Amino acid sequence: MDITNITSFVPPIRTLMGPGPSDVHPRILAAMARPTIGHLDPRFVDMMDELKALLQYAFGTNNELTIPVSAPGSAGMETCFVNLVQPGDKVIVCQNGVFGGRMKENVERCGATAIMVEDTWGTAVDPQKLEDALKSHPDAGLVAFVHAETSTGAQSDAKTLCQLAHQYDCLTIVDTVTSLGGTPVRTDEWGMDAVYSGSQKCLSCTPGLSPVTFSERAAARIKSRNTKVQSWFLDLNLVMAYWGGSQKRSYHHTAPVNPLYGLHEALVILKEEGLENSWARHQRNHLALRAGLEAMGLSFIVHESYRLPQLNAVTVPTGVDEAAVRQRLLQDFSLEIGAGLGSLAGKVWRIGLMGYASNIKNVMYCLGALDTVLSAMKAPINAGQAMAAAQRVAS
Amino acid sequence: MDITNITSFVPPIRTLMGPGPSDVHPRILAAMARPTIGHLDPRFVDMMDELKALLQYAFGTNNELTIPVSAPGSAGMETCFVNLVQPGDKVIVCQNGVFGGRMKENVERCGATAIMVEDTWGTAVDPQKLEDALKSHPDAGLVAFVHAETSTGAQSDAKTLCQLAHQYDCLTIVDTVTSLGGTPVRTDEWGMDAVYSGSQKCLSCTPGLSPVTFSERAAARIKSRNTKVQSWFLDLNLVMAYWGGSQKRSYHHTAPVNPLYGLHEALVILKEEGLENSWARHQRNHLALRAGLEAMGLSFIVHESYRLPQLNAVTVPTGVDEAAVRQRLLQDFSLEIGAGLGSLAGKVWRIGLMGYASNIKNVMYCLGALDTVLSAMKAPINAGQAMAAAQRVAS
Repeated sequence: MDITNITSFVPPIRTLMGPGPSDVHPRILAAMARPTIGHLDPRFVDMMDELKALLQYAFGTNNELTIPVSAPGSAGMETCFVNLVQPGDKVIVCQNGVFGGRMKENVERCGATAIMVEDTWGTAVDPQKLEDALKSHPDAGLVAFVHAETSTGAQSDAKTLCQLAHQYDCLTIVDTVTSLGGTPVRTDEWGMDAVYSGSQKCLSCTPGLSPVTFSERAAARIKSRNTKVQSWFLDLNLVMAYWGGSQKRSYHHTAPVNPLYGLHEALVILKEEGLENSWARHQRNHLALRAGLEAMGLSFIVHESYRLPQLNAVTVPTGVDEAAVRQRLLQDFSLEIGAGLGSLAGKVWRIGLMGYASNIKNVMYCLGALDTVLSAMKAPINAGQAMAAAQRVAS
Repeated sequence: MDITNITSFVPPIRTLMGPGPSDVHPRILAAMARPTIGHLDPRFVDMMDELKALLQYAFGTNNELTIPVSAPGSAGMETCFVNLVQPGDKVIVCQNGVFGGRMKENVERCGATAIMVEDTWGTAVDPQKLEDALKSHPDAGLVAFVHAETSTGAQSDAKTLCQLAHQYDCLTIVDTVTSLGGTPVRTDEWGMDAVYSGSQKCLSCTPGLSPVTFSERAAARIKSRNTKVQSWFLDLNLVMAYWGGSQKRSYHHTAPVNPLYGLHEALVILKEEGLENSWARHQRNHLALRAGLEAMGLSFIVHESYRLPQLNAVTVPTGVDEAAVRQRLLQDFSLEIGAGLGSLAGKVWRIGLMGYASNIKNVMYCLGALDTVLSAMKAPINAGQAMAAAQRVAS
């Protein structure tokens, strides 16, 4: 490529209703542009302390080891596995979507064995199957599962799964990438031991950071490892020298200063609204979207009892080219919704209502745009019904 | 900590003349705040292609595998090692500062053996010592060294070291975190095989991204591994499905969208100035700073012949409390300079003139502030001489 004519990149204005990133709050964008200061500056260190306290609030925990990993959610996942898993270990992994499969990859790359507990994509993890696996593998030391499967929109019962794990002396690794801030995540109450999330979903921040929290049990296991953590960058024994409790921070890696400003602002906004209010808002806007989608004749792939309000996976009507619909939505309405992943590719759309993007204006805009595009493509829907149905629920 | 009273974080305005982050160009800060779009958006994909081309320009390479890793420089280092090293391998690591030691950590955490070639901190890597090691270890497959040691300010002869490595059938891993954009980095001409850098030094971007480039030889070795890369997040075989050459990108992890806007802008600015002009500017401002520091009576720890213009390590005068000086500079002048690291802790200051921060205003400001603080502390310097000396060189 000839670089001569490359100039500043000015992105289009989108409405982001896919599986993340979601629309970013203007206050967070403004925070990203504040002047950079040093990663060991005393003022920055004060900001880090606030950030830790705000993350503890979001995670519902008093865990001392609560920090943002300096990389996206996938690195947060890897942080949990490389620190808690040692070669030769046995880890029970519950899979009901794409991200359980990624957990298996992580376990195996740590030189450990993954015992897979499989559930149909779009359903929740079955506690009975987990208990069977725990009974069959008394030498397992860890249970890993996804609380909110971004690939399907199904939420599992984290409390019950953690209780079972602890009954069989296992610690737990839990993926809350899509749930944190959108639906309840009660780290301490549910007994989750290692929890990771992402900045770009219900926290409405820009992508690139991964909040994590570790229980005292988990921290103790990390400290007592008899092998080194295979990743230097993600080794919490080293990272904690920088993010630790004292004012005397020692250099590990250079923290992503401006993205951390953004995450701080995102968490201040969450605190101002209040966690419970945020959860209620996500539920309210989901119900309005659902009324509209159902009035059009579209159906959800996840049963109501474990459906995530912030990630709505709906079946593509027979005969409709799902990619063409997304393309029209992007081109004509500058609206992004998500495609299916893995075994659901081509079969579903994933409509996100996450964080700042979970508002009634987005609900109405998405329904109107979808109605227009599907009608123009002569898809088998009840055209013109969606927005009125949503309005009835919203009002 | 009680979170009730936590509000938006408004950082102070600093002048950043430490070892990085350096002052960020206002255009880059503005780019960070542009509206977030999806990481699979066609407009974003176009931006990624531009970014790759601009990185090729900065690295002096035609390597297809040239991308920014979605995490800080330490993760870029780890990307090179985990992809190129397999368990049981032997890697020759040249160490002349902190970051060679980190390379050793990386090698060992990959299950390989590090053969250390040690040089005094503050000197360049000695090619003769490398050749001796290559002769003694004909089974080594890789040579790793730091081109520009951020901990000391010494630059090594990358071209000669790479030639030697190739003579003995080794590939090379080279750290250019502090050199890229500030002094010549000629990836293809010098035959460097795996090169990593950071966004927050001479590119003047915010910290958090790590540009990397791999030669065809290195890419072929990664593709022909007989073990999986131990990091899922950093596995280039997977990352390339997202950053690869085709318009059909597949999801690996969610890219840090806004920081990538920032890096794109940083590279556009570099292209507008021109690499050669940027190198000349770094040299010019270094000479002015040097004249001022020497007029004060301060001396450099690195010999002129391999001294980095962008990272000036100077000896702390006898009897001076180096930490107190940095604290006064920060409090009274909002000016950050760096402390010594590792074996140089307490003995040197590291004064950065990197990227946007490499300008005559910063040179004069730093000299004036240092003169004021050292004079007030009755340090043994020639007070009042610095700025005039710098001015003579600059004009």
